[in-house]
Amino acid sequence: MKYNEYLKVLDEALEKLPFKPGVVGEACRYHLSSGGKRIRPVLLLHFAKDTEKALPFALALELIHNYSLVHDDLPAMDDDDYRRGQETVHKKYGEAIGILAGDALLNTAFEILLEGIAKNPTRERIQAAREIGHCAGIYGMIYGQELDMDESPKVEEMIHYKTGKLFEAAMMAGGLLGKKENLEELLEFSRIFGLLFQITDDLQDLDEDIENNKVTFVTKNREKETRDFIQKLSKKAFLYCEKEKDDFLKELVEKTVNRA
Amino acid sequence: MKYNEYLKVLDEALEKLPFKPGVVGEACRYHLSSGGKRIRPVLLLHFAKDTEKALPFALALELIHNYSLVHDDLPAMDDDDYRRGQETVHKKYGEAIGILAGDALLNTAFEILLEGIAKNPTRERIQAAREIGHCAGIYGMIYGQELDMDESPKVEEMIHYKTGKLFEAAMMAGGLLGKKENLEELLEFSRIFGLLFQITDDLQDLDEDIENNKVTFVTKNREKETRDFIQKLSKKAFLYCEKEKDDFLKELVEKTVNRA
Repeated sequence: MKYNEYLKVLDEALEKLPFKPGVVGEACRYHLSSGGKRIRPVLLLHFAKDTEKALPFALALELIHNYSLVHDDLPAMDDDDYRRGQETVHKKYGEAIGILAGDALLNTAFEILLEGIAKNPTRERIQAAREIGHCAGIYGMIYGQELDMDESPKVEEMIHYKTGKLFEAAMMAGGLLGKKENLEELLEFSRIFGLLFQITDDLQDLDEDIENNKVTFVTKNREKETRDFIQKLSKKAFLYCEKEKDDFLKELVEKTVNRA
Repeated sequence: MKYNEYLKVLDEALEKLPFKPGVVGEACRYHLSSGGKRIRPVLLLHFAKDTEKALPFALALELIHNYSLVHDDLPAMDDDDYRRGQETVHKKYGEAIGILAGDALLNTAFEILLEGIAKNPTRERIQAAREIGHCAGIYGMIYGQELDMDESPKVEEMIHYKTGKLFEAAMMAGGLLGKKENLEELLEFSRIFGLLFQITDDLQDLDEDIENNKVTFVTKNREKETRDFIQKLSKKAFLYCEKEKDDFLKELVEKTVNRA
């Protein structure tokens, strides 16, 4: 399947999620419908191979990513008023709904995972869900959020947790579902990709980040050093894609590197 | 087992949960160690019968209850500085850590549920986990939180969701794990008990709630009407306990009613 085909499946499935009652439900739908690249669930589906069977895992991962954005935008955290060209949830619905909508997205993610397990409780599916839960949690993304609050964070460690762990979840869960061999190599690739993704993202935002005194890999190092590092990482990433004869992945790495 | 024996098992197991890295982990441990009656997980263990096998489910439920308290205390929500005689998490560690610690408690709850399923993936255990997830979520407790934000909430509906749903989770998950028959009757009892628990709690806080203009069942109705309602509910609750010959439950209902 092509990227846009995955995206279509995901967007349709996300739209079908009920999120019914009240303002919290509305806020969840509001945030989810603002789009985004859905790159994490796309990666999960790519490695899982069977899109239909893997869909709950991909949806859960996307909800977890989105809950983290909603909470990250809150005044006590990054205090952002806009995201993806629209007002952030707390800006539009108030801070309390922002907190509750994030909670609801996270809780729903796990409800979907459990439903997916109930349908077909294989060892791989249970492990895939655990992988997602672990990478999202206090030994994963949440720890990254904490590191990001440091005034002078160790940026590489921070990226490893805050951004990298959900890419790790995407590829490890996908790999487990797709019964891929050599998961250790995929794990190594996921870590390289997470770094590449964040650093190229930071390069795009460089001027803005300097203005806001935001500490990123690029502001901590220099632009030239960063570009050299991206070269080094992408070389490793391409080697993996070639070894795996994975053109889909290669194209994704190319797109990621080329945006910087 | 007696209440205090359950409590000992739970407190020891909660203390053993790692919550390792960083300040978020410390904040989680700080909040959990402040005690509480642990009544929800005790009820779950009581109905599940096999304490050891049901322990992950009981722990997860207690973590979910505690995450909801940490988030509920935040300035944008109830803005409480003290709970259980100590500073609330956000008061002690700051608002960002309050948000992240709540997230971490919720995420960890589901990690523990998934670990419990991985150990023994029976239909009942998967269903029990789903019950907990559903009751905690946007069709459960989170919806109750939203109703509670109304200036003039329908108090009985609000209690049904905000307080009742986790009692429902405790008894339904426990009943599923213990392969109890007539779960519909237990569901009915759990809803009565949830109401009784909240209304008797509100009666204890009556003076304070009047002072703070807080809308509760008691401030919305009158004290006499409330006590009559408690009589009516407790009669139904005791009938169930007698029919089930469940002295443990009867004692719990007595304690709950008598505190008002």
